[in-house]
Amino acid sequence: MLNFEFKNPTKIIFGKDRIEELPKEIPANAKILMLYGGGSIKLNGIYEQVKEALKDFEVLEFGGIPANPEYEILLKALKIIKEQGVTYLLAVGGGSVIDGTKFLSSAALYKGDDPWEILSKAIRTEKGMPFGTVLTIPATGSEMNSGAVITRAETREKLGMGGPGLFPEFSILDPQVVKTLPERQLANGITDAFTHVLEQYMTYPAGAQLQDRFAESIMQTLIELSPKILKDPSDYEAASNFMWCCTMALNGLIQKGVPTDWAVHAMGHELTAIYGIDHARTLAIVAPSHYRYNFSSKKEKLAQYAERVWNVTEGSVEEKAKAGIDKTEAFFHSLNIATSLSEYTENYEGTAAVIAKRFTERGWKGLGERKSLSPSDVEKIIEMSY
Amino acid sequence: MLNFEFKNPTKIIFGKDRIEELPKEIPANAKILMLYGGGSIKLNGIYEQVKEALKDFEVLEFGGIPANPEYEILLKALKIIKEQGVTYLLAVGGGSVIDGTKFLSSAALYKGDDPWEILSKAIRTEKGMPFGTVLTIPATGSEMNSGAVITRAETREKLGMGGPGLFPEFSILDPQVVKTLPERQLANGITDAFTHVLEQYMTYPAGAQLQDRFAESIMQTLIELSPKILKDPSDYEAASNFMWCCTMALNGLIQKGVPTDWAVHAMGHELTAIYGIDHARTLAIVAPSHYRYNFSSKKEKLAQYAERVWNVTEGSVEEKAKAGIDKTEAFFHSLNIATSLSEYTENYEGTAAVIAKRFTERGWKGLGERKSLSPSDVEKIIEMSY
Repeated sequence: MLNFEFKNPTKIIFGKDRIEELPKEIPANAKILMLYGGGSIKLNGIYEQVKEALKDFEVLEFGGIPANPEYEILLKALKIIKEQGVTYLLAVGGGSVIDGTKFLSSAALYKGDDPWEILSKAIRTEKGMPFGTVLTIPATGSEMNSGAVITRAETREKLGMGGPGLFPEFSILDPQVVKTLPERQLANGITDAFTHVLEQYMTYPAGAQLQDRFAESIMQTLIELSPKILKDPSDYEAASNFMWCCTMALNGLIQKGVPTDWAVHAMGHELTAIYGIDHARTLAIVAPSHYRYNFSSKKEKLAQYAERVWNVTEGSVEEKAKAGIDKTEAFFHSLNIATSLSEYTENYEGTAAVIAKRFTERGWKGLGERKSLSPSDVEKIIEMSY
Repeated sequence: MLNFEFKNPTKIIFGKDRIEELPKEIPANAKILMLYGGGSIKLNGIYEQVKEALKDFEVLEFGGIPANPEYEILLKALKIIKEQGVTYLLAVGGGSVIDGTKFLSSAALYKGDDPWEILSKAIRTEKGMPFGTVLTIPATGSEMNSGAVITRAETREKLGMGGPGLFPEFSILDPQVVKTLPERQLANGITDAFTHVLEQYMTYPAGAQLQDRFAESIMQTLIELSPKILKDPSDYEAASNFMWCCTMALNGLIQKGVPTDWAVHAMGHELTAIYGIDHARTLAIVAPSHYRYNFSSKKEKLAQYAERVWNVTEGSVEEKAKAGIDKTEAFFHSLNIATSLSEYTENYEGTAAVIAKRFTERGWKGLGERKSLSPSDVEKIIEMSY
């Protein structure tokens, strides 16, 4: 097991009808900016519940944060925060709204001239404006971690940021929201959480048995509940496990003491930046090819995964490992998630070279758990994903 | 899944040679009281490492905190804290030292006349004196939770306390300490952690698949590593998993959203209070009888446990459930832990009635996940444990 540090101070308030507890979590004198996305919260009743809970607070609103939260739009919210003297941020939404709120939390206290530097210079946020979240889409885990990914349309960039100042003070998770989500978002959420686990697990054996088993637990549970959720998103038992799996998949716990990969995300982000493909679907496009390309260095964990998660008991390490990749791809298909880039765009030719070039230009650090993948490796993996 | 709240702000610093990082975690102007137990830390080098790390701080010491931290002894430390103006507590030890430090953290700021009220009146500690820990014995999980159990010799009482003010600010976990521990403490630690998981798992199905699998993960890992640890406690891989299992077994995570039992602990504490039997061993004495006595209400979870943790694939639910209990008892025996009270004391006759009477006198709330066990049930369970 590798040395690690773990601290996650976010308070999770989980279960039915918890939004009414909002007033207990926010300082009484707070001037709140409530942030949300495209308006689905006005259709599913969450908006009304939040407004009712906060009726004794001074609340400003900023809606319209898009999927893959966009820098230029967030700057408008930043202007409101500064001009209006906002003291507390409340994200009501999914990962995009929460990530956008994290950027604002950091940017509100940033001393530099250009808040894009937080992303371009990878400046760690030690202290941000306090914020909480009401999660409406289980998927990214952003409700219980300190990371965010922000997109800048003009440069087609999608960059990450983070730091200990960016944990939500609290997050309210009511699994009843799951029944309001379209199948596309449910499938995306399952795929996103599942791939988050893969990124922290599918590397090489590092003697971290407990972390391995926790990771396997999340994947087993997602596999078990996914047909139930897609069939009936009002199944509360399945919905609550789905929601808690998504949070646990990326709250830091399973990555502690183990090597992590994240190459699938790095490549996937580029596909979103270039083609606007849903984040989760880019992961499903890249992951199988990534594991096939890096088969020899990942085969022990692939085989363990096939055995424990998919109950593949026959065959050599190589045969089990291969079965593990095939099972993963079949799982994505079972969610109606296509796993080839050509199923999303006709203009896929040349994508691999473009992405490899972008990585090179941005300063190459090497991808994967050994930081050993070169731009030419990336190019081959993306080609395998066509 | 039941509604729940989860917040655990303790910072874990895990791995080899982390004690030297102590100065980063404690305010520079702190006046520290370092608390420890019977002096084993002076034999295994931990004492020297801590003193060296804190050489630029003002450090007072209080040694001699016994297993089952004793109220009268802790009052002496409390006197030092108050008279000397101590501002920060550092527990260097196992669960007993950490639990004792938690009592002191609470008592140092307690406004009432008699700090025993914190225990006797079950007063929740919202704010305590800040403290950190250096864990030297993996077992209780106290290093990452906000609970403590304190013993009062004069009344032979052993009572619990807790509250959000009693999370350690940080805990340093260096698995290299494991190799310095005698077999008795290793076996106790494994048994303690294993039973902590059982108490949060062996109830009735509550639709919390992820929590179930996490609990099973901890038990599977403990079963896998225990022969390795007992054979060679310098096996770092086994030691690090052992240490992390103990922490994860009782840091709150696996109890969220599920019913919990804790009757085994309630009964076990009485055996420690009366006979001075090691805490972990009292759990091994009581648990098998408890599960046999409450077989009908726990058989579904017992069968799931037998299947997933012990790979019992044949038989009816009842047969699997029974196998699960037998496997548990055999596991304790494999650790050289005796599971009958008569193996610890010749004076066991009448114990059951004494304990039932003590529970009655203390105000009966009902034990178990349904608060349904009466003093007469307790009497029968303890009799089955003779």
